[in-house]
Amino acid sequence: MRILGVDPGLTRCGLGVIDSGPARTASLVAVDVLRTPSADSVDVRLGALAEAFDQWLDTYRPDVVSIERVFARNDVSTIMGTAQVSGLTMGLAARRGLPVAMHTPSEVKAAVTGSGRADKKQMTHMVTRILRLQSPPKPADAADALALAICHLWRGAGAATSTPGPSKDLLARQATTRQGSGLTRAQQQWAAALRGARK
Amino acid sequence: MRILGVDPGLTRCGLGVIDSGPARTASLVAVDVLRTPSADSVDVRLGALAEAFDQWLDTYRPDVVSIERVFARNDVSTIMGTAQVSGLTMGLAARRGLPVAMHTPSEVKAAVTGSGRADKKQMTHMVTRILRLQSPPKPADAADALALAICHLWRGAGAATSTPGPSKDLLARQATTRQGSGLTRAQQQWAAALRGARK
Repeated sequence: MRILGVDPGLTRCGLGVIDSGPARTASLVAVDVLRTPSADSVDVRLGALAEAFDQWLDTYRPDVVSIERVFARNDVSTIMGTAQVSGLTMGLAARRGLPVAMHTPSEVKAAVTGSGRADKKQMTHMVTRILRLQSPPKPADAADALALAICHLWRGAGAATSTPGPSKDLLARQATTRQGSGLTRAQQQWAAALRGARK
Repeated sequence: MRILGVDPGLTRCGLGVIDSGPARTASLVAVDVLRTPSADSVDVRLGALAEAFDQWLDTYRPDVVSIERVFARNDVSTIMGTAQVSGLTMGLAARRGLPVAMHTPSEVKAAVTGSGRADKKQMTHMVTRILRLQSPPKPADAADALALAICHLWRGAGAATSTPGPSKDLLARQATTRQGSGLTRAQQQWAAALRGARK
């Protein structure tokens, strides 16, 4: 299975493609961060991202697209661009009939590092290990897109396809908070296995 | 000049096409409201909207697209879908090289009725008059998309092309508030002319 992870953003939009192997292994296919100049108008930037994203879909032909779920936050100004890019990439993928999975940042962190509160360094470290790379993926902020792809591989299609609306987002967030670490038993086992592999 | 107005929304997305005539007149070309079932996942709904919107661009070949500017509001859950659809339609239009103009709801109301606080009934009334229709456009919630197209015709490309980021949105909103009615002198003249025409 080939998974395209998307870390949506107007200034930086991370894209990472992985192929799944046997026994939960994964290998890197491609990774990059699309950038659009903030001096351009939003529509021009979105148009450039639409072109680039469709090229990635054409080039890498993923079986599924895994996109970071954008949350309602207090500081709305920062998420407008993210919401617009997520809407654009979701629409472009779905119109091709591709399944689109949404994962929250804490789900991604929990899947990749075993902790829903992992920092950037831990995330990059684990992405590098899981994909058996010689060095951290470049550019540095590309690791998140790969982590989204890995998260989807780990959680499986059944657990994560498609997108509840914002109200369900909130419920999901609350549910995660209530669980403390946000880890299911299977996630804990996976995290333990990874910790073992790290030793 | 042919203008496509877009009232973005996930459940209802209004589309209205007008042609400009001499002396600020305009005629209706097409109007509809795209609907996607809330039972479907967001990605599937966005995919359907992407297909339909591209078909409208192919069929009607507008010279410019006028989209409602989505504001940061306190109730973020209601604007996520709107932001996603606006991002999708902006990207699809801009990738074709089409200019995209953004207009706030109060700008649209002011342009069409002379008052930035006009209600739905006034808006529909004036859209019907301006386009010299025998009866209000159907479906009822399609009037907003036509109003967005009319607003762009009235304001002109120079005043309204392209899209400042969210922080500029806030500044624009504050500026409008400070102006009281939110009407420029030209808008007031236009509003007066319309009131005259109504008598």
